Amino acid sequence: MTVVRSTLSEEALGVTGTALQETLVDLLGLSLVGKQAHWNIVGPRFRSIHLQLDEVVETARAHSDTVAERAAALGVPPDGRPETVAATFALPGAKSGWLRDTEVVELTVAALGAAIGRLRERIKATEQADPVTQDLLISITADLEKQRWMFEAENRAGDAG
Amino acid sequence: MTVVRSTLSEEALGVTGTALQETLVDLLGLSLVGKQAHWNIVGPRFRSIHLQLDEVVETARAHSDTVAERAAALGVPPDGRPETVAATFALPGAKSGWLRDTEVVELTVAALGAAIGRLRERIKATEQADPVTQDLLISITADLEKQRWMFEAENRAGDAG
Amino acid sequence: MTVVRSTLSEEALGVTGTALQETLVDLLGLSLVGKQAHWNIVGPRFRSIHLQLDEVVETARAHSDTVAERAAALGVPPDGRPETVAATFALPGAKSGWLRDTEVVELTVAALGAAIGRLRERIKATEQADPVTQDLLISITADLEKQRWMFEAENRAGDAG
Amino acid sequence: MTVVRSTLSEEALGVTGTALQETLVDLLGLSLVGKQAHWNIVGPRFRSIHLQLDEVVETARAHSDTVAERAAALGVPPDGRPETVAATFALPGAKSGWLRDTEVVELTVAALGAAIGRLRERIKATEQADPVTQDLLISITADLEKQRWMFEAENRAGDAG
Amino acid sequence: MTVVRSTLSEEALGVTGTALQETLVDLLGLSLVGKQAHWNIVGPRFRSIHLQLDEVVETARAHSDTVAERAAALGVPPDGRPETVAATFALPGAKSGWLRDTEVVELTVAALGAAIGRLRERIKATEQADPVTQDLLISITADLEKQRWMFEAENRAGDAG
Amino acid sequence: MTVVRSTLSEEALGVTGTALQETLVDLLGLSLVGKQAHWNIVGPRFRSIHLQLDEVVETARAHSDTVAERAAALGVPPDGRPETVAATFALPGAKSGWLRDTEVVELTVAALGAAIGRLRERIKATEQADPVTQDLLISITADLEKQRWMFEAENRAGDAG
Amino acid sequence: MTVVRSTLSEEALGVTGTALQETLVDLLGLSLVGKQAHWNIVGPRFRSIHLQLDEVVETARAHSDTVAERAAALGVPPDGRPETVAATFALPGAKSGWLRDTEVVELTVAALGAAIGRLRERIKATEQADPVTQDLLISITADLEKQRWMFEAENRAGDAG
Amino acid sequence: MTVVRSTLSEEALGVTGTALQETLVDLLGLSLVGKQAHWNIVGPRFRSIHLQLDEVVETARAHSDTVAERAAALGVPPDGRPETVAATFALPGAKSGWLRDTEVVELTVAALGAAIGRLRERIKATEQADPVTQDLLISITADLEKQRWMFEAENRAGDAG
Amino acid sequence: MTVVRSTLSEEALGVTGTALQETLVDLLGLSLVGKQAHWNIVGPRFRSIHLQLDEVVETARAHSDTVAERAAALGVPPDGRPETVAATFALPGAKSGWLRDTEVVELTVAALGAAIGRLRERIKATEQADPVTQDLLISITADLEKQRWMFEAENRAGDAG
Amino acid sequence: MTVVRSTLSEEALGVTGTALQETLVDLLGLSLVGKQAHWNIVGPRFRSIHLQLDEVVETARAHSDTVAERAAALGVPPDGRPETVAATFALPGAKSGWLRDTEVVELTVAALGAAIGRLRERIKATEQADPVTQDLLISITADLEKQRWMFEAENRAGDAG
Amino acid sequence: MTVVRSTLSEEALGVTGTALQETLVDLLGLSLVGKQAHWNIVGPRFRSIHLQLDEVVETARAHSDTVAERAAALGVPPDGRPETVAATFALPGAKSGWLRDTEVVELTVAALGAAIGRLRERIKATEQADPVTQDLLISITADLEKQRWMFEAENRAGDAG
Amino acid sequence: MTVVRSTLSEEALGVTGTALQETLVDLLGLSLVGKQAHWNIVGPRFRSIHLQLDEVVETARAHSDTVAERAAALGVPPDGRPETVAATFALPGAKSGWLRDTEVVELTVAALGAAIGRLRERIKATEQADPVTQDLLISITADLEKQRWMFEAENRAGDAG
Repeated sequence: MTVVRSTLSEEALGVTGTALQETLVDLLGLSLVGKQAHWNIVGPRFRSIHLQLDEVVETARAHSDTVAERAAALGVPPDGRPETVAATFALPGAKSGWLRDTEVVELTVAALGAAIGRLRERIKATEQADPVTQDLLISITADLEKQRWMFEAENRAGDAG
Repeated sequence: MTVVRSTLSEEALGVTGTALQETLVDLLGLSLVGKQAHWNIVGPRFRSIHLQLDEVVETARAHSDTVAERAAALGVPPDGRPETVAATFALPGAKSGWLRDTEVVELTVAALGAAIGRLRERIKATEQADPVTQDLLISITADLEKQRWMFEAENRAGDAG
Repeated sequence: MTVVRSTLSEEALGVTGTALQETLVDLLGLSLVGKQAHWNIVGPRFRSIHLQLDEVVETARAHSDTVAERAAALGVPPDGRPETVAATFALPGAKSGWLRDTEVVELTVAALGAAIGRLRERIKATEQADPVTQDLLISITADLEKQRWMFEAENRAGDAG
Repeated sequence: MTVVRSTLSEEALGVTGTALQETLVDLLGLSLVGKQAHWNIVGPRFRSIHLQLDEVVETARAHSDTVAERAAALGVPPDGRPETVAATFALPGAKSGWLRDTEVVELTVAALGAAIGRLRERIKATEQADPVTQDLLISITADLEKQRWMFEAENRAGDAG
Repeated sequence: MTVVRSTLSEEALGVTGTALQETLVDLLGLSLVGKQAHWNIVGPRFRSIHLQLDEVVETARAHSDTVAERAAALGVPPDGRPETVAATFALPGAKSGWLRDTEVVELTVAALGAAIGRLRERIKATEQADPVTQDLLISITADLEKQRWMFEAENRAGDAG
Repeated sequence: MTVVRSTLSEEALGVTGTALQETLVDLLGLSLVGKQAHWNIVGPRFRSIHLQLDEVVETARAHSDTVAERAAALGVPPDGRPETVAATFALPGAKSGWLRDTEVVELTVAALGAAIGRLRERIKATEQADPVTQDLLISITADLEKQRWMFEAENRAGDAG
Repeated sequence: MTVVRSTLSEEALGVTGTALQETLVDLLGLSLVGKQAHWNIVGPRFRSIHLQLDEVVETARAHSDTVAERAAALGVPPDGRPETVAATFALPGAKSGWLRDTEVVELTVAALGAAIGRLRERIKATEQADPVTQDLLISITADLEKQRWMFEAENRAGDAG
Repeated sequence: MTVVRSTLSEEALGVTGTALQETLVDLLGLSLVGKQAHWNIVGPRFRSIHLQLDEVVETARAHSDTVAERAAALGVPPDGRPETVAATFALPGAKSGWLRDTEVVELTVAALGAAIGRLRERIKATEQADPVTQDLLISITADLEKQRWMFEAENRAGDAG
Repeated sequence: MTVVRSTLSEEALGVTGTALQETLVDLLGLSLVGKQAHWNIVGPRFRSIHLQLDEVVETARAHSDTVAERAAALGVPPDGRPETVAATFALPGAKSGWLRDTEVVELTVAALGAAIGRLRERIKATEQADPVTQDLLISITADLEKQRWMFEAENRAGDAG
Repeated sequence: MTVVRSTLSEEALGVTGTALQETLVDLLGLSLVGKQAHWNIVGPRFRSIHLQLDEVVETARAHSDTVAERAAALGVPPDGRPETVAATFALPGAKSGWLRDTEVVELTVAALGAAIGRLRERIKATEQADPVTQDLLISITADLEKQRWMFEAENRAGDAG
Repeated sequence: MTVVRSTLSEEALGVTGTALQETLVDLLGLSLVGKQAHWNIVGPRFRSIHLQLDEVVETARAHSDTVAERAAALGVPPDGRPETVAATFALPGAKSGWLRDTEVVELTVAALGAAIGRLRERIKATEQADPVTQDLLISITADLEKQRWMFEAENRAGDAG
Repeated sequence: MTVVRSTLSEEALGVTGTALQETLVDLLGLSLVGKQAHWNIVGPRFRSIHLQLDEVVETARAHSDTVAERAAALGVPPDGRPETVAATFALPGAKSGWLRDTEVVELTVAALGAAIGRLRERIKATEQADPVTQDLLISITADLEKQRWMFEAENRAGDAG
């Protein structure tokens, strides 16, 4: 069924649709894992990181909406259902129960780092296929790289000097 | 490990913790399914229901945060990870791909109806265990019943008169 | 005709529906009488009470909307038509023409007091029937009791000391 | 009793006072009927018209306040009590119970149309008596004619082409 | 010197220019007298009337700006200099020193009443000369009549009943 | 085809409809010419007039919307298509390319002056036909006359003294 | 002297009045102790906890106002004078002088914990006496339990894992 | 005449200037046609699409300003005069008179689709000539593709399933 | 223990620290007494003074925060604990129970007057010791003198004329 | 009659009261003259100076209110009546009729300069009499000196280099 | 020391880091020079350019923050210290003392022009190295080119026609 | 060249001008060093201090603007160019590269402490020369002393108890 007619060639659409669907799952997963850490974190940096995680969640939620609507705009129905997110989420997740603040920082650096690596590949993949989608992926990468830096800077004091 | 000491008895805590964890999954699932429908809906009522679904999502997200933080406040670590949501979500979900507007309305009425039924049981269960949690569940029920009415009124024109 | 299916039993619905319909009329009537006094008040406390009455009206209007939508959400069509309000309004009303400020204060204390007495009965009546509706009636009572206190304090200087 | 001294002649005051009192009842009645439809509407256009009706109610409430205060400013105590509204409301009203969306649109067009016809007569009647009141009635007419158009355009698709 | 060319005939311009200049002085004078009373009022209604006078001042200032700019727009340089206001202000003023609250209310009713009487004459005078200016004078009259009512209602309690 | 039924007589509707359609084209044309000058102006007063032109454009756009919706409300479909605006726009326009700031001021005074002259005729024409439309035209004239004054005052320094 | 007439029975009023007065003192005391810690805290978590304490103070102040006005609304004059607060404040307080951040966290957990224990007893005590007051106490408890969790999570990192 | 010196080579400037001028006309035309439909639409989806069209107009107006100012910034005077828009507008337009809601949806999908096709070519054309302009064209395309999807989803219900 | 090193000499610090600590207690006491009156006032000026007292409380709270943080900034730990406020508060306080509006006005004039007298001495005392602290005390005095005037003007009608 | 009791000695009050009354007249006069120039300015810098004058007027109005209320707070009834302002205004004023932009700049520099000179003397005079009033006069001087600089910089281009 | 691990290759990081560091210095320098001109400008266009320069400063400050944080996010510590800015700032600066408005416009055009030229080279240099950084540089260029146009248009009136 | 004529004597102007120029450089330097630390900080308190530094920068920037404009208002052209700031900045600066959070806190305490010491001398120096400038320096000192306290309290936990 073709509901929304795409302006891209079939091939370009394939590449772009895959990039968007994968990014959607990464972002929805990040928003759930970010909230999980936001709720379960314990330790002397509780408040500071509890608040910072909400910025990650806010970023992930806002971009997930744009990404899904971009897929729809190209004629590819996005899939963000719980079962799809759980089955295809490929970033590091959280263990159950309370999480020490240090663990949370490490987890977030790792999850954001993995998400960024995947986004960088999709930026290359969509360059020819759809520069409009590529531009969106670039914005998401910029935001996640900023978030990762802030968690990494928080974690790496030992290396300084 | 006891990180946050509860003010409830063990038994009351058991009842309350279960009610909150189940409600958390219902609300996170609703927020994902609501977004799924928000993105994939097609049909002459697209804009109207597209916007209304964002109110459902907004309601579900806001309450999920309060519910999870209430669990934490009682000493029960909440679990809202993707795998947990997917494994324990018990409300009607969405099929993949584009969704007709009429299907979306029916699905939303059904999902909200099921969520409300489960909440009403938890309101009874927590009455003795923790009136503070019960009060929160009552607020969530009020909001979801309002949302369900608006979708049901939208869907039932044929019965009128 | 059943347009919106209720989640309550027939009996509970009967109790709750009646409580909500009567509350709706009380609040719509209060909003009209409050405005009547707001426009017709004369005397040295004109401005002070003219403004305070708008808070009563604002409170009554906001709650009337919530009450009517709660009735609809339970499957009971609310009735707030002019003829229904006039026929079933049971609180003290205003005489026509200009109203002295002292009269207005007395009238408002009386009208709010009557409304509160009726609400307290409905709070008891709905406790088993529908705790969600009960919670709404409790909120309305809290607001009207606050308003009544402020008018009563304004009126009772003579008793002080 | 003369509380507020008018700046108009007795005759001009008679004409103007009547025009304002009748307009007050029309607007209060419209606000109640508009809310009635806002709460009881069912059908596929539920959300769209539910929201649009609140604009009608908002318009009617805001103008009713200005109209009543204008009467008071001229020395004529306005009468907006429930019994007065019910007894003198002369526009088409709503039947009790759920209302199909198509019925609501027709009802609103009819009620606004009748209100506009009455206002146009009062615009003529007050031209000599009080141009300040006339100017107010012109503003109300402009707003109600805009609202009527939007409901009529919604209802008349069949005639198009 | 003709700086801004008027779109009106010489005669119409004469009538309109005079009406605007006189209104400007009335409004600037009212704003100064209103502030004088705002600062010097004493008595049990101090706060209530102190605040209400600022609404009169705000109204007078806003309209004085519109009136002066309308004169300029028609090619008539407006004159709102201290010496002009003092020399041509024709409304009741305030005595020096503290003012009892009852005096203030009477003074404000008198000053607003005189201003309204003069405005009503200018509304007639400008009807043919310039309906755009007339419309502005009508708006000012409506606002001042509302203010006068509120002070008069405050002052006339003794007549009520 | 009659989609929206008018409350005016055929003749009154003819006069009013023409007045509104012509005003619509004047305002849409003004908004386009105003933007053209906003973008192409050069000279030492660039910033000052660049900003002032946006106020003209903002005014013209807002009024064009009200005028078109008023036509629709009376049952006359408004026509603001590019080809209609180009074909029937009767005010002075702009030449292509960069525009000196002095040219821009002269052009704007001329265009606004012509628009005002045409509006003043329509104010007369609609007085009997439809006082509601007349009131709208009066408001537009007031705003454009204010704008014209500000440009004319900017341009006429040489005449001062 | 009876200034404001209560709607409760004497006995219910006794229970409710005591609950409200005690809660008032707890909240006013908390707001003073919270500010004391806000000003005197030192240590590496200064900024984080300095800001978090202002949320506790804000919460305590807002609820103290509602609690005192609820007492007044029931006819019980609330007592929040310095001497009363000092004499009847029963929660853990602060020592004078600078406070280490770790001490502040422990103190806040202890003070909030004690306040919550007392509130839970009053929730039970007022259930029959006045469900409106009970509902208010439930809201306060929910807020304080959320605050306590955030300080406890901050303090208990050592237990995690 | 060279007023603003460009930072681009003559050839790059030629390509970029043409792309911007054509985009300007497309966007100004879209804003006029969008308003035309906003005013003339009739049918059961009147309100929904009436509001959605204003988002298209808002988007088109905002981007037209940026595009014209970008042309000026590069030294190319933009041309958005009525006669230029009418003469060079190349997207599907609207017929005169009332427009059924279904027609409006089709028209908007077609107009946006044509605009997008033209923008995609200009994105390619400006890649080497001026990546800053290309980035702007990419943003416009993203916004118009989102708008087109929402109208297309609204129109294509029949294909779903 | 010296936590924060002061920039003042020991002697200057002694003078300044005492001035700030005494001011802190005055302001915290005023905020508690102001609220006490806000809650317990009865009489015909209830609303007017109830609202005005909240401005006193707001002023006192805001300045108490600045004063305490200034003490801390100079290295003097401020003491605002309940027991300290109760033990060292030296301004007129309130009796328990309901307070007539006339009593409240007198009490507030007296309390503010005493606070001002003490502040004026501290302004002199800190002139040489610390002009930065002196400037803060001057601001507080200006605000309290404004508040005192408004209550005194309210109370002294009898003397007027 | 002593309505508001001053906290100052008779002598200090004399000095301070005179300083405040003179400042009040300067500021009210400035606000009237500033508006006069705002309305009557013509020339190529019309818009720029028209807007800047409103900042002068806004500053003068805000400070005049504070100054008058400070006089009242000290027990000195302020006098800002039109006749007083006209009789005692001692700064350079404006001639009637249109004013060239260059004249306006010179006038404003001169009027602000004279006001500042007078304020500087009052700052000295009140240093011992009332440091609270002195602090207020210092703030006014700072604001007027900033305004004067901006007009002087605008006027003195010829001297630059 | 490697504190933040980059996701780029060493070579790409070298190119990108250099581009960001140079851009940072350009922007910080521009913000200081822009403020210098904002403070020291004299001449008849004082206000207009004084305000416009603050937009340049605002733009430069906002982008400098993003650029520095992007460098940090890639693992390159940004250097914006006074000595670094002074030593490596390569754009045209300002002479000391007052600056004529014409000089300021020329200086700003020159400084922005030089900055743009350097940015365009970095856009090319980073295309392969890091498209995320390139996208940021494109945005900065777009903003600076818009600013340069506005100053150039202001300066080049002589060439027009 | 004398562009802006000062109201101060030559000698007073010399003292004041020097105080303002030195303060300007201190504040601009602080704002650059504060941003440097904001970007380069690493360690477990990253987020907390990263945010707090932006408050220092915001304070420094806002005051630098006021200080520079005050110099200009007195006729002294302020010098805030990069080369001047680098050459005359006399506070402790930052080393290049990443900075541990503990280092940042120490650096900020030291830099603020040095700035405060210098400001305190200028407060004395300007007391006779210009009390208006002195008042500005007092405000800046108050703000910087508050900032210094917050960093010092953060750093000195070890001394507490």
